[in-house]
Amino acid sequence: MTLREALDQEKMDALGKHVIAELYECDREIINNQELIEDIMLEAVDLSGATIVKPAFHKFSPHGVSGMVVVSESHFSIHTWPEYGYCAVDIFTCGNLIDNHKALTHLKHRLGSKSISVVEMKRGMLDLGVELHHKPVGVK
Amino acid sequence: MTLREALDQEKMDALGKHVIAELYECDREIINNQELIEDIMLEAVDLSGATIVKPAFHKFSPHGVSGMVVVSESHFSIHTWPEYGYCAVDIFTCGNLIDNHKALTHLKHRLGSKSISVVEMKRGMLDLGVELHHKPVGVK
Repeated sequence: MTLREALDQEKMDALGKHVIAELYECDREIINNQELIEDIMLEAVDLSGATIVKPAFHKFSPHGVSGMVVVSESHFSIHTWPEYGYCAVDIFTCGNLIDNHKALTHLKHRLGSKSISVVEMKRGMLDLGVELHHKPVGVK
Repeated sequence: MTLREALDQEKMDALGKHVIAELYECDREIINNQELIEDIMLEAVDLSGATIVKPAFHKFSPHGVSGMVVVSESHFSIHTWPEYGYCAVDIFTCGNLIDNHKALTHLKHRLGSKSISVVEMKRGMLDLGVELHHKPVGVK
């Protein structure tokens, strides 16, 4: 890859992608287990190529888990309803190097979901007359 | 309000609402100030009637702030690009008692945004043949 091609990959018409996923018919025991959810989410972040900044997970009484992970490239979140076998997931990432789909496939598999629906939105479609960079040029 | 009416309000065709907001032309100094962003977000949570569970904020170098607040009713998140005057916000709440619009109006005002665009999605539209409750009946 030439330097020009590498730089071109950084040219974006939007700052990020936001994947909103509904995971149905999940394993009700798995999605009520905070430690497991935490492991599975952090694995998903890792598989996507994103970098963990701050995780925050919480178990509700009597059931349900919420978890968010701030990553360098934005965030991953999950909210689970074990009583309905349902999880709400969103993955907001910036740049062209993060593989959201790998993360989502991992979540579907590990949470035992039998069906999912996904909406993908572009975020930050700015018309400022300048080339957009999701992070300052030169910052790793 | 009768007990029946109160119970009826808890009947939902979806578990939650997810507001995805683009805030343009924000005050670039404000949206680069982690402490301010934290105050403004927690005020927005409070105004909406949601309950804070776990906040997680982070300042990037040389600029930009990411923040997430796990609330009892799901989450609030913000990611800021001071260099573009842009903030990406999402507010995911469950139940009928949270006022997302009050939260969003507060964010727009305090972040000095001159224009916003908003998409609102229903989350967890489950067809399970049972009445949906975003939290177990009887739990406050």
